[in-house]
Amino acid sequence: MPSFPSDQLQPNEMHALRIIALKGMISRTELAEYLGYSRASITALVNRLVQIGILEELGEGESSGGRRPRLLNFKGAFGTLVGVDMGATSLDIALADFSGQIIERVSCTIDVRNGPDIVLTEICDQINRMLIQRELSPESLLGIGIGVPGPVEFSTGLLIAPPIMPGWENYPIHKTLRNSFPMTRVVVDNDVNVMALGELRSGQGRGLDNFLFVKIGTGIGAGIICAGRIHRGSTGCAGDIGHICVDRNGWVCHCGNVGCLEAMASGPIIAKRGLEAAQEGRSPALAKLLESEKTLTAYHIGVASTQGDRVANEIIDASGLMIGEVLASLVNFFNPSLILIGGGISNIGDRLLSSIRQAVLKRSLPLSTRHLVINKSALGDDAGVRGALALVLESLLGI
Amino acid sequence: MPSFPSDQLQPNEMHALRIIALKGMISRTELAEYLGYSRASITALVNRLVQIGILEELGEGESSGGRRPRLLNFKGAFGTLVGVDMGATSLDIALADFSGQIIERVSCTIDVRNGPDIVLTEICDQINRMLIQRELSPESLLGIGIGVPGPVEFSTGLLIAPPIMPGWENYPIHKTLRNSFPMTRVVVDNDVNVMALGELRSGQGRGLDNFLFVKIGTGIGAGIICAGRIHRGSTGCAGDIGHICVDRNGWVCHCGNVGCLEAMASGPIIAKRGLEAAQEGRSPALAKLLESEKTLTAYHIGVASTQGDRVANEIIDASGLMIGEVLASLVNFFNPSLILIGGGISNIGDRLLSSIRQAVLKRSLPLSTRHLVINKSALGDDAGVRGALALVLESLLGI
Repeated sequence: MPSFPSDQLQPNEMHALRIIALKGMISRTELAEYLGYSRASITALVNRLVQIGILEELGEGESSGGRRPRLLNFKGAFGTLVGVDMGATSLDIALADFSGQIIERVSCTIDVRNGPDIVLTEICDQINRMLIQRELSPESLLGIGIGVPGPVEFSTGLLIAPPIMPGWENYPIHKTLRNSFPMTRVVVDNDVNVMALGELRSGQGRGLDNFLFVKIGTGIGAGIICAGRIHRGSTGCAGDIGHICVDRNGWVCHCGNVGCLEAMASGPIIAKRGLEAAQEGRSPALAKLLESEKTLTAYHIGVASTQGDRVANEIIDASGLMIGEVLASLVNFFNPSLILIGGGISNIGDRLLSSIRQAVLKRSLPLSTRHLVINKSALGDDAGVRGALALVLESLLGI
Repeated sequence: MPSFPSDQLQPNEMHALRIIALKGMISRTELAEYLGYSRASITALVNRLVQIGILEELGEGESSGGRRPRLLNFKGAFGTLVGVDMGATSLDIALADFSGQIIERVSCTIDVRNGPDIVLTEICDQINRMLIQRELSPESLLGIGIGVPGPVEFSTGLLIAPPIMPGWENYPIHKTLRNSFPMTRVVVDNDVNVMALGELRSGQGRGLDNFLFVKIGTGIGAGIICAGRIHRGSTGCAGDIGHICVDRNGWVCHCGNVGCLEAMASGPIIAKRGLEAAQEGRSPALAKLLESEKTLTAYHIGVASTQGDRVANEIIDASGLMIGEVLASLVNFFNPSLILIGGGISNIGDRLLSSIRQAVLKRSLPLSTRHLVINKSALGDDAGVRGALALVLESLLGI
C-alpha cells in the first residue's frame, strides 16, 4: 500500500490534481473552466485539497485586467518523490518535494553489469542518506520513478532481454525497492521514454503532441511522445532505433544482425574509428591525444574535431549522417514537430548535431520538415531524473 | 449548417452516442457502466435517444445467465452517410444508412489528374443518382467522408503539394460538395489514413491500439493507428513511407531524391522490370504475356509468378524485400501489433506478402516481432469506403 492517500480523494479531486499535473500551476478560474465547475463548487473542491495539504495557492499569475490571480500548485511539504536515471555506468538520483522542486541531486558511477542486488542497494542507500540528511521520514517518500537502460514491459516493470544488463531480466525491481520503502509507489520504465517524458513536462517538449527524444551513447534509442503521451508500442519496445539497418554490408552488431545503426554510429564506434586513425598516423591531433590520454573515447574525437582535425570531423560526420538518415525515415513516417538529441555523445560538439540536421533535411519530405526543429536537449543530464519524477507523480495521480 | 441535430443533443447524449460508435452495439447495462449511470438514468437517456430516432434496440446480445439482453445500435433510418475512396484512377462510393449498413456501392474509373471540377462533379452525380434510386431526399444525407490520394491538412481538409493530383492543391473540396449538399458534413483525409480507420472500426484492426495499414500501388504509403486513433503527425503527413531511402545508389524518384521506396518497389517498377525481362528474353512466361496483352502491368508479373516463372518471382521478391526492410525499421521504432497490406499491388499473389514477412522477421528485434502479425487486408477494396463512412460518422459525433 503506497502512502499516497488516493482512497481519501474523490474522483473529481483526483481529476483536478491530474489537470494541475498536466497543465502546471493554474488559477481557480482556469481549473473551474477545465472541470466545468461553478465558482461555489470550485471553492469547495480547492478548499478541501488545500486542507488535506496537497495543494497550496501562491505567487501571482498573469492578470487579464484586474487583480492578479493567485495560482494553485502542489504543496511541496505534502511528500517526497525520488527520480532515478540509471545508465550503463552512471546513476543520477534526485530527491524532490511534491511540487517537483529538486531538494538534492546526486550522481555516482556504477556498473549496471554488477547486477540488481548491488545497484539497487546503492540506490536505496543513497535515498536513505538523502532522507536522513534532509530530516525526512521514510514515510514521507510517496514514490520512486526509475529509468533503466533496457527494454521494460511497462505493465509489470520487468526488463525483457536487456542486452547490456545481464542478471536483470525479469528481476523484480519494484519488490526490492519496496522492501526498503514499503509505503512507496515504484514505477520503472525505459530510460529514453523517461527522458522524453522529462522534456514533455519540464523541457522543450512542453505542450507538444508529437516529438522524439534520441539518446546517443553506448547505444542509440528513441523515446516517442505521441498525442502528448509516451508511446510504448504493443510490447513496450517502441523506439528501439539502434537496430535499424543503415548498411547491408556493415559490421556485425551484438544483436546478431549486420549494419545496425548502433553498430555503425554510436559512441564506441566513434572512439574505435578515432583510435584506428591515430594508430595509422592519419590524424596528428588524435595521435597526440592518444599519447597523452593512453586511450581515446568519443569525447576525445570531439576535442580533436573542435581543434579542426579533418579526420575527426569525418568520423563525426559519418556518424551524424547515418543517424540523420535513420531519423529522416522516421520523420517521413511519424512527422514529429521536434527531435531532441541527448545522451553522452550529444556533448562531443556541435558538429554531430549539424550533420544530423543536414541528413534529415536532405532525405525527408519538405512538408514534414517545414516546421521541424532538431535541437540538443537543453535539460541534458536532468531529462532523466525530471522524467522519472514526472513518471511516478503521474502514476500516483492515475494519469 | 449540417442537418445532424447536434444542437438538440445534450453532452451526455452525445457521449453515449460516441461510446456506441466506438464500442459497437451494446446493452443498456453496458452503456450504463461506461457512463457510470443508474438504471433510472440510463432508461431516461436511452428512451430519449430512441424517441429522437437515432438509436434502436434490436437483436439479442450474449447472456451472462438470464434473459438475453437487447442491444442498442444506431437506427439506419435516422439518416444517410456516404463514404468515398478516391484513387488515382478509381472511385469507390458507398451509400450507407446511419447504422453503417451499406445500401449501395459503386466503382468507376476516373483520372484524378483531370482536376477537382470533373472528379467532384462525378462524385456528386453518383451520390445524387443513388439517392434518387433509393428514394432518399438530399436532406437525409448527413455526411460525406472522402479519402484522397495525397497529403491532407486535416484541420482544413485541403491537399498540400499532392504529387499525383495537379490542380487539387488547396482546392476547397468541402465547399464544392456543400454547394450540392448544403446540409451535409464533409470530411476529407488522406486515403491510407481512411483505410486504416476502416480496418480499426470494421476489420482486423478492431480493438487494437497500434497497427499500420500499408497501401502498395502506384505509390506506397502507410496509415498509422496509435493508441486507437489515426496518427496524422504534426503537419498531417505522417505515414509517408514511400520516400524513405532504400538504396543510396538507386533510381531518381519524382520527389527529386534518389532510391526512394516508391521509386524502387512500387507497382510501376514491378511492371517496368517485368517488361525489361520480357524484351530481353530473360522470361519466356513474361514474353508470352507481353505478346498477348501488348503491355505488362504488375498484375501480369504476378500471373507469371504464380505460373512459377523464376524471373517474375525474383522481381516480386526484390520489391517485397525492400518494402519489408523499411517495415522492419518501422517495427523497431513503432512496435505495432499488426501490419495490414492493401492496395492494388497486394493482389498480385501471396509471394509478395511472404517476402515482406521474411524481410521484417529477419531485420526486426525479436521482442518487437514476438506477437506481430503481418496480413493482407481482408477488407481489401472496402477498407477505403468503410473508413470514409467511419470518418464522417465520428466527425458528426465529435470523436
